[in-house]
Amino acid sequence: MNELLSNEINVVTAGAPLFAEELRSQNVRVEEIQWRPYPQIAEMTRIYSDSRLLSANQLALSRMLASEARLVDIKTAEEALELEKYSLLHAGPPIDWDSASGPLRGALIGAVLFEGWADNPESAEKLLSEGRINLEPCHHYNAVGPMAGVVTPSMHMFEVFDQSTGNKSFCTLNEGLGKVLRYGAFSAEVISRLNWMRNDLGPLLQLGIRSLTDGIDVKAILAQMIQMGDEGHNRNRAGTLMFMRDIFPSIIDNSSSSQISTAMKFIGGNDHFFLNLVMPTCKLQTLAAANIPGSTIVTVMARNGTEFGIQTSGTGKDWFTGPAQVPHGLYLGNYTADDANPDIGDSAITETAGVGGFSMAAAPAIVKFIGGVAADALAATQRMYQITVGENPLFGIPIMEFRGAPTGIDATLVVRTGILPQINTGMAGKVAGTGQVGAGLVTPPMECFTKAIAELAKRV
Amino acid sequence: MNELLSNEINVVTAGAPLFAEELRSQNVRVEEIQWRPYPQIAEMTRIYSDSRLLSANQLALSRMLASEARLVDIKTAEEALELEKYSLLHAGPPIDWDSASGPLRGALIGAVLFEGWADNPESAEKLLSEGRINLEPCHHYNAVGPMAGVVTPSMHMFEVFDQSTGNKSFCTLNEGLGKVLRYGAFSAEVISRLNWMRNDLGPLLQLGIRSLTDGIDVKAILAQMIQMGDEGHNRNRAGTLMFMRDIFPSIIDNSSSSQISTAMKFIGGNDHFFLNLVMPTCKLQTLAAANIPGSTIVTVMARNGTEFGIQTSGTGKDWFTGPAQVPHGLYLGNYTADDANPDIGDSAITETAGVGGFSMAAAPAIVKFIGGVAADALAATQRMYQITVGENPLFGIPIMEFRGAPTGIDATLVVRTGILPQINTGMAGKVAGTGQVGAGLVTPPMECFTKAIAELAKRV
Repeated sequence: MNELLSNEINVVTAGAPLFAEELRSQNVRVEEIQWRPYPQIAEMTRIYSDSRLLSANQLALSRMLASEARLVDIKTAEEALELEKYSLLHAGPPIDWDSASGPLRGALIGAVLFEGWADNPESAEKLLSEGRINLEPCHHYNAVGPMAGVVTPSMHMFEVFDQSTGNKSFCTLNEGLGKVLRYGAFSAEVISRLNWMRNDLGPLLQLGIRSLTDGIDVKAILAQMIQMGDEGHNRNRAGTLMFMRDIFPSIIDNSSSSQISTAMKFIGGNDHFFLNLVMPTCKLQTLAAANIPGSTIVTVMARNGTEFGIQTSGTGKDWFTGPAQVPHGLYLGNYTADDANPDIGDSAITETAGVGGFSMAAAPAIVKFIGGVAADALAATQRMYQITVGENPLFGIPIMEFRGAPTGIDATLVVRTGILPQINTGMAGKVAGTGQVGAGLVTPPMECFTKAIAELAKRV
Repeated sequence: MNELLSNEINVVTAGAPLFAEELRSQNVRVEEIQWRPYPQIAEMTRIYSDSRLLSANQLALSRMLASEARLVDIKTAEEALELEKYSLLHAGPPIDWDSASGPLRGALIGAVLFEGWADNPESAEKLLSEGRINLEPCHHYNAVGPMAGVVTPSMHMFEVFDQSTGNKSFCTLNEGLGKVLRYGAFSAEVISRLNWMRNDLGPLLQLGIRSLTDGIDVKAILAQMIQMGDEGHNRNRAGTLMFMRDIFPSIIDNSSSSQISTAMKFIGGNDHFFLNLVMPTCKLQTLAAANIPGSTIVTVMARNGTEFGIQTSGTGKDWFTGPAQVPHGLYLGNYTADDANPDIGDSAITETAGVGGFSMAAAPAIVKFIGGVAADALAATQRMYQITVGENPLFGIPIMEFRGAPTGIDATLVVRTGILPQINTGMAGKVAGTGQVGAGLVTPPMECFTKAIAELAKRV
């Protein structure tokens, strides 16, 4: 003690600058630490005092890492999910017609037309606005839908199976970019493409996958993609090509359809085709971590174009929502930021599982699609390690010396650090019928996480 | 002058440390510059005084960058190169049987068996050792061959066309890894695979390419590969998949062969298949830069398993050779460094064109195949900018903010800096018949460049 007082005094201060200023005026050396008190201090303290916390989150992480994802079948939504007539699924948390944004409305109108429940957009809109069509989130069926994410009973869906849990997840087939249903377009070309997918593409792929003894290991392909410049959300080029490599020999051997080469050109011309297989793979990973009491790991991030909603492991199927933000990035053709709808789609399940925006360091070429420079892609991944509880060694990022993808978003870390999960995403036009207007970067609103923390604290 | 002497003296020294030491002993501040005199000072000075030098090298670079590469046909070597009975091509500079290493001998024996010029390895070896088989380098036909690079008259070859020059280049179809002819294996399975390639694979691909109006733009695919973790020498995964995407629809539409799915599985199971298209693409690029008087740009680097040979633009078809080095890297199974043959193959044409080892920064995952860490891959590319005269904007490396691949090796820069071109390569077993034993890194011997400098100086 004597020694302490007799030597020069060096002080470290945290928090309010007042302390440091006062000391400096007395000629004391001060190191200021960037620190701010937790928001929601009482609730956070309650969660951190929960003896279950550490083991619950480690269990969630280990289940995520152990999850598998094998494409085992392709079925219509009616067969796969028992989706009935006049029922449609959509992306994000629950929403009704009145609150739906342009692209979701456009996709719902197109879905009603595609199913033949109405003859023209006006009648379709009438059915929808009168509440005669049942709307439910994809996630309530363990399904996931990119952008508007609208699923109709007769659409084909990938069925992806997790041997480690017995869970299944589902996603429709990807329609390509531009004027497509999931971006809110519903013109004749959109419906005609969906008809070809129902009549030709779906059955061909179904035949192909059913002829393969062991299906296709989607998670293994995703691991390869991370070494091939794909991050699984807005770059799925290598994944799409590997899917073609794996399924077409089986189709060729079992079909004499004149549509095989057309199907190959359709998939080969759509670098995003494999997104619809990455998404259910990521859903299986996060689903494996769901419903662990005491766990603060985020298991769902999803947007319906109006609200952003999350779920956490410790709070089961509760949604915590806030207003969806408008992404910023690069715009197609003459579109501008004014044309972009707020964030939409279940595709943020990729980030929830550690790929997509979280693994952009593996896919620096993505900046040509979403804007920015390659260094931003690296920085985004590095930032995400601060809000995740682990790393996925299967998704080793080569340029980071094969460091595993940042995995397992911890809601407490998001609130403590103020760092929001980094999502990269497509942008839909805000006017129904427009289609895609660009691609860029977005985050959830902090509100989702503060609400989740409040509920998690209650449950301690 | 007065001011200079009245102020403190700071000295910069270059070269021998003696100067600096002497000054320091007199308490003078010294900055030493790392510098050594050029080797071959008289010859280098002569070359640097050549008024043609700068414009000749700029012309060479601009022709390299402007070159195109379109796969337009697939033909047998007999049709494509008028290769006659009892004639075989091989990789690297000219060599005869007596000087040939194990893997080249093994491949030549296999080639004789495959063509039916002998019934067994002993008779084949007798024909070869008696000089009854005519041996010529692939490069003398504007062809390129990976590893042993042996071409027989009945093998199918890709014909790749450069619209900018009218040049054509040729390469055989890739057989896969392990026990294959190009690595010096000649067992029954090797010959049987080559027969299937001649009877089924070649004709199917020929049909496919002939049914495409514009062929396949190989250079465009190579540009994509650089964004997908391929460097075009030992990683050709994305390239192989894009080739399948582009050619199979055309095959499916024009053939009812039962071999289509087999061909698809064969190519899909061989990540190196596209190497044999990258190589002629690179040959066309360097061929475009050939024969410019005064240019010191390297247009060929090739190895026959015994010698490494280079050609430069200003010295036409002259070979400058030195002993081939043994690569260091990772070994398959129980093989060790003792099993590896010295460097072999025309595949160093990839590095000569700025990809392969020169673009490893684009393909950090390659270190899992050739050894080292990802940082080494980045460092190798950065080092190669010091011995090249330009960058290829078409091959923009994402992680380096899309900086173009280092392109156009200048022999004077190699000699001045002492930095040798970085090649990554497969390793053949040194005993004939072994096949592949590993993959790793290697450089040419400096001797190739000092010999080239001597001849370039003579021609000033």
